[in-house]
Amino acid sequence: MESVFQNETVREILTRYRRIWAIGHAQSVLGWDMEVNMPREGILERSVAQGELSVLSQEFLLKPEFIELVEKAKGIEDLNEYERGVVRVLDRNIRISRSFPPEFLREMSEVTSQATKAWEEAKRSDDYSKFEPWLDRIIDLAKRAADYLGYEDEPYDALLDLFEEGTTTKDVTRMFDKLEKELKPLLEKIMEEGKVPQSHPLEKETYEQAQMEKVNRWILEKFGFPLGVRSRLDVSAHPFTTEFGIRDVRITTRYEGYDFRMTVLSTVHEFGHALYELQQDERFMFSPIVGGVSLGIHESQSRFWENIVGRSREFAGLIYPTLRENLPFMSKYTPEDVYLYFNMVRPDFIRTEADVVTYNFHILLRFKLERMMLNEGVKAKELPELWNDEMENLLGIRPKTYREGILQDIHWAHGTVGYFPTYSIGTLLSAQLYYHMKRDLNVEELISEGNFGPIKDWLRERIHRHGSIYPPKELLQRAIGEELNPDYFIRWVKERYL
Amino acid sequence: MESVFQNETVREILTRYRRIWAIGHAQSVLGWDMEVNMPREGILERSVAQGELSVLSQEFLLKPEFIELVEKAKGIEDLNEYERGVVRVLDRNIRISRSFPPEFLREMSEVTSQATKAWEEAKRSDDYSKFEPWLDRIIDLAKRAADYLGYEDEPYDALLDLFEEGTTTKDVTRMFDKLEKELKPLLEKIMEEGKVPQSHPLEKETYEQAQMEKVNRWILEKFGFPLGVRSRLDVSAHPFTTEFGIRDVRITTRYEGYDFRMTVLSTVHEFGHALYELQQDERFMFSPIVGGVSLGIHESQSRFWENIVGRSREFAGLIYPTLRENLPFMSKYTPEDVYLYFNMVRPDFIRTEADVVTYNFHILLRFKLERMMLNEGVKAKELPELWNDEMENLLGIRPKTYREGILQDIHWAHGTVGYFPTYSIGTLLSAQLYYHMKRDLNVEELISEGNFGPIKDWLRERIHRHGSIYPPKELLQRAIGEELNPDYFIRWVKERYL
Repeated sequence: MESVFQNETVREILTRYRRIWAIGHAQSVLGWDMEVNMPREGILERSVAQGELSVLSQEFLLKPEFIELVEKAKGIEDLNEYERGVVRVLDRNIRISRSFPPEFLREMSEVTSQATKAWEEAKRSDDYSKFEPWLDRIIDLAKRAADYLGYEDEPYDALLDLFEEGTTTKDVTRMFDKLEKELKPLLEKIMEEGKVPQSHPLEKETYEQAQMEKVNRWILEKFGFPLGVRSRLDVSAHPFTTEFGIRDVRITTRYEGYDFRMTVLSTVHEFGHALYELQQDERFMFSPIVGGVSLGIHESQSRFWENIVGRSREFAGLIYPTLRENLPFMSKYTPEDVYLYFNMVRPDFIRTEADVVTYNFHILLRFKLERMMLNEGVKAKELPELWNDEMENLLGIRPKTYREGILQDIHWAHGTVGYFPTYSIGTLLSAQLYYHMKRDLNVEELISEGNFGPIKDWLRERIHRHGSIYPPKELLQRAIGEELNPDYFIRWVKERYL
Repeated sequence: MESVFQNETVREILTRYRRIWAIGHAQSVLGWDMEVNMPREGILERSVAQGELSVLSQEFLLKPEFIELVEKAKGIEDLNEYERGVVRVLDRNIRISRSFPPEFLREMSEVTSQATKAWEEAKRSDDYSKFEPWLDRIIDLAKRAADYLGYEDEPYDALLDLFEEGTTTKDVTRMFDKLEKELKPLLEKIMEEGKVPQSHPLEKETYEQAQMEKVNRWILEKFGFPLGVRSRLDVSAHPFTTEFGIRDVRITTRYEGYDFRMTVLSTVHEFGHALYELQQDERFMFSPIVGGVSLGIHESQSRFWENIVGRSREFAGLIYPTLRENLPFMSKYTPEDVYLYFNMVRPDFIRTEADVVTYNFHILLRFKLERMMLNEGVKAKELPELWNDEMENLLGIRPKTYREGILQDIHWAHGTVGYFPTYSIGTLLSAQLYYHMKRDLNVEELISEGNFGPIKDWLRERIHRHGSIYPPKELLQRAIGEELNPDYFIRWVKERYL
């Protein structure tokens, strides 16, 4: 396999980059192990090790000789697109890393670690006052982070760009404005029409973990997920995907013991993330352009498999026999029941349990609040009321506890502000990709046949194989010749739910 | 908890050492994951990551500023024993690391990686000629390694010291001379007397892995092994123990499906290794003096639990009820059967399956051959014949295949020469510790009661809590006021098997 990297300076950069890659590999394994295997008192030593590895990786990235090489490469005109990708990604990483003074990073790490504990305690006791002072400190840190990073229009831009390169607050506002305008009446209509159930008896059926695991593995095998060869399925408190390279990509799920839709759809969702990593171009191995380019694009892949594939009528038909075989209660239900159960629509308080239609309102709410914190000086004290008002405005329901309101997500406690919009970007994009795919493939037929090869090939060709060569917006232009457009998602909701 | 490290220079050393520790932690997690979890095609990226981390760790150890600090500390007179331990261990590591030129390390790594593949193939096809040229290269590398390291008496000293600090070939020769002289007639007598069985019907009984795992977990819980809290039990092709720190120490076992003695005794063996790491002084965390001091001392701990505890009549009685509960065939047998089955003595070809009495002859054979390779210019071509002759001399049996002779162990293919004697050192030492323990404790009564606390405390007090402060010989003097003495083991064999 000939290398796609021919330029001498870029090759020199990649040789040095290899140790940064190796540290990243180690950090991922340590992180996965912590969630999946680690005996509980291993946390102290694991945290210290992770902290040291972070500092180390940062040091190598910011070594003057390394930066000089990247600067030199920026000036070379005849780089190929792979080489330009390497330079773009590293230049961006260096710029971001250099923005923050070490004292700031230390403060961030201390505050978020204490804030996380405070949040856990606050959530447990449903006592917002325990988290409030920490949230104020996090808002302050987020503002300072935005200032360090710099921005053109408003502070929120700086944070958003960390997670979705090149996307601005204006972009997101435009997206949500359209969505709010069209999706709100649509939701009302769906609820009025009553074709789509708000609840289903399958929610209450309980299952054995071992049986359910067989179902999940059956589905993953149908998808061609290379279990044991290049991947694993494990159990963790919160499902996630992690990649240690192109040839070792692992997903987790969890088993609540009831409402099996949760474990099936989360497994299918994580498979979508994993497929993006598994279908990378092997020539990018060990380089900074290997792996998904942004959180939004990543989420478009997971949502494609979860919503477009996993919630389709054809998928319900496809998996019905294995459900029937492993879940005794299934004999009372039809494939159509499974389909309806997977597609319930019901305004509810908790984002992670939200259906496809209401999900985006949960994100919009958070986006509005985050912008207020950053741009309008809103304080933690005011947020619960603002949360509840907005929830009532968007979904017509008002949380009675903090736990089902502002205390539900861990993100802010972790200091992560500006991340939420990527969930909606991914959701909208998954529908957009679907309609483009339909021009080339009979998607529904392929799903009903369990013939996922052509779908995977299509995604590989358009998205996966490009790794991080192009920034997200350019990738999208090359893949489908368009920018992100919420119309596709709205169309999909109409077709599916009306 | 007040730090035991007060000296400023030592504290500065330890601050810098923390990243070496962190890299080691990561290497251990990556290694464990590779054996226990890794999907098989993950190997390429994992190997590259491990290689980069090794180089990195080496670089930090050999940084001029770091070496200078260690040199400076060597000159400070009023260090406490912990601080002196830190300086001794680092000075030794630096000395060893500096001995080898980078080209040599690269060659070693390339040759052993190809030799390992060749060995696998040779063993599979029982064709020594496939391994022979590689073994010659490894002998050459071992000689050069000895030259780089330097030695007083003979090249073998240099390699032995890598694994057992301060132990010389003279020490080992003395030990084996005595052993050969006394143990050979003893073995003959045991075989003549016939009190100890050479085989037992329990060898043939088959079991379900899930049932057997319950037995192993029951035993580990009886031992007070903190499963899920600070430890785990997993499955791997070759059982091993690994520590990621004091608070995360993991063991593995394997399940052949028959001859359950193998999985029980290997679990008990690995528990012994793990206990040594779990009972470290927490004040040594993140420092170079945390963890077992040498392979021989480590093996004394595993063999203590395997041979002294695990093969005792009292232990057979203790675990009989759980065996009975989980293994249906056990109803046909008595606790005495289990005891006899665990203590069979039978000259056989394979080291890893050898009994307590013949085991040391397997090591002696390898020690003799390794010395010939290093000191007497013996070539790979001559080794199979030498192996078989020595086997006949020591155990009265002659291998008919290479697989049951010279091709059985992976060690040489890995370039590991000088390691084997530590297995015997540990075995002999375990008996020596036992007789010293008996002065303080009624060991048999404690085992029969399943009351392992006092035994664990005794080992912690004498051995474990000292980590690597003292070199092995000094540790032994402090623990029992003696040097290694094979008489105890011979006495134990007489008492147990005659």
